[in-house]
Amino acid sequence: MSAHQRVADRDDALRFRIDLGYDGTDFHGWARQPGERTVEGAFHEAVNLVIGPDAHVRLVVAGRTDAGVHARAQVAHLDIAGQHRLLPYGRDVDVLAKVLTRKLRGALARHPDIAIHSVVPAEPGFDARFSATGREYAYRIADNLAIVDPIRRRDTLRVNVALDERQMDLMARAQVGFHDWAAFCKPRPGATTLRTLTEFSWRREDDGVLVASIAADAFCHNMVRYLVGASVAVGRGRISAADVDVIRESREHALAVVVVPPHGLTMMGVTYPSSPAELSAQAERSRARRVAGLGVDDDE
Amino acid sequence: MSAHQRVADRDDALRFRIDLGYDGTDFHGWARQPGERTVEGAFHEAVNLVIGPDAHVRLVVAGRTDAGVHARAQVAHLDIAGQHRLLPYGRDVDVLAKVLTRKLRGALARHPDIAIHSVVPAEPGFDARFSATGREYAYRIADNLAIVDPIRRRDTLRVNVALDERQMDLMARAQVGFHDWAAFCKPRPGATTLRTLTEFSWRREDDGVLVASIAADAFCHNMVRYLVGASVAVGRGRISAADVDVIRESREHALAVVVVPPHGLTMMGVTYPSSPAELSAQAERSRARRVAGLGVDDDE
Repeated sequence: MSAHQRVADRDDALRFRIDLGYDGTDFHGWARQPGERTVEGAFHEAVNLVIGPDAHVRLVVAGRTDAGVHARAQVAHLDIAGQHRLLPYGRDVDVLAKVLTRKLRGALARHPDIAIHSVVPAEPGFDARFSATGREYAYRIADNLAIVDPIRRRDTLRVNVALDERQMDLMARAQVGFHDWAAFCKPRPGATTLRTLTEFSWRREDDGVLVASIAADAFCHNMVRYLVGASVAVGRGRISAADVDVIRESREHALAVVVVPPHGLTMMGVTYPSSPAELSAQAERSRARRVAGLGVDDDE
Repeated sequence: MSAHQRVADRDDALRFRIDLGYDGTDFHGWARQPGERTVEGAFHEAVNLVIGPDAHVRLVVAGRTDAGVHARAQVAHLDIAGQHRLLPYGRDVDVLAKVLTRKLRGALARHPDIAIHSVVPAEPGFDARFSATGREYAYRIADNLAIVDPIRRRDTLRVNVALDERQMDLMARAQVGFHDWAAFCKPRPGATTLRTLTEFSWRREDDGVLVASIAADAFCHNMVRYLVGASVAVGRGRISAADVDVIRESREHALAVVVVPPHGLTMMGVTYPSSPAELSAQAERSRARRVAGLGVDDDE
């Protein structure tokens, strides 16, 4: 029996949906690690402060992010059970969510690189990770020193050669669809590399910065950063858009495609079904795929 | 005879136009100060490294910025004369500008919060400060904790109350014109408070952040931050748009209008005449006004 079940299956368990953002620069990624400053670690500390040491809590995030990766709109759920410090506030979950919002923001005040956007009672069937039907990321590249904005250096990759955004965009759009992405994933035992890429495009913004929009049902590990690496190789003219198809179909890593640095990457959003029935159904499907070894693996 | 004349009036003097940007967070403003890290100080150090200790150099900026204020597009000119290390590269100013660009970027590499966008030979008559006919600033405010993006916390003011952007925008647009801005300036002996505000508006961007666009021929000290302070007072409903007119016409500071923090403020650009004749003529006008005590005073 997992810790997840231990908390969530209790009759007295409360589940909240938490929307948050963070500047990943000074974090060693999302996941708690001993001796490292992580978003989950800072968050757990704040939760423990607010909820008290005698409570049972569990925090589950939609997409774990690697060290240096940012989140504009990340989603987590928090289960609370047992002897917790919200009990004196009664059983009205809307009131409890308001109290939790205020107290969590207060407890996180010394971490200005984390922002709690909202805390609301989770809809029935909602699971931040397993109910998610899509994840969206953006990647920013400044390919011209004349346009570099120092205030954005934390979330923008700087490259010293002009990239051909038209070829990058053509390649990107051609990747959309259901494929085996093994060539563009960091391998993990037992994790599937079958994914549906639902959006992939490049545009040059008014300030000259190249921005990729990338969305999928879920991503295998480092998939976004491999896809951006393939884009940079195409943008420099080292490989063609057709080469990217060949590499993908080979299911083998190619020397021409390297993982780009994490700091240009930002998680932009998570998509959920709109109805409670679909939230549960999606979570059931995700859990079943996970049990079958086709599991959700949403690390970037 | 000013240091400016000493360098610029020499027959061997070279003048370059430098376009640059900086993240003002960790700088004590533009102007050199003993014992403080400033943009001008870091820049001078880099210039000295590149040009050598025996050269005569002078650096003049379009708008000096206060501690914590950023620049997306600042302009300076650099005069070089005497025994300098560019001499071996010949007299072709385009070649020299290319050498200077590369070497200055190299010398500034340990300051990732400064970006050199370009270095080009100055057009005849060009003076970064006195030829300028306009300066543009932006100010960013997040007035809702649900939209705070931690990656932008360095250049966005956070306020805990929802602001009425319609009233702010109406007030702002009504301020455009030639006025005495003494009520919205930090007083300086001998400095004029007569300015032409050419643009002032508020808009809410897609991500919910309120952004002001503010432009004038020149600004008196802290004028932009006073005008944003007046906007916040209107946005909170503490004063009306009409009150702002009354305060401005009183030429006296009002308790309701306070200077907002510097970190939301970014210099967005400097406007120059397009023809060399106008560059010189504008510089002559600015210098004459300065001598007459109506001088340019472009600190923000």
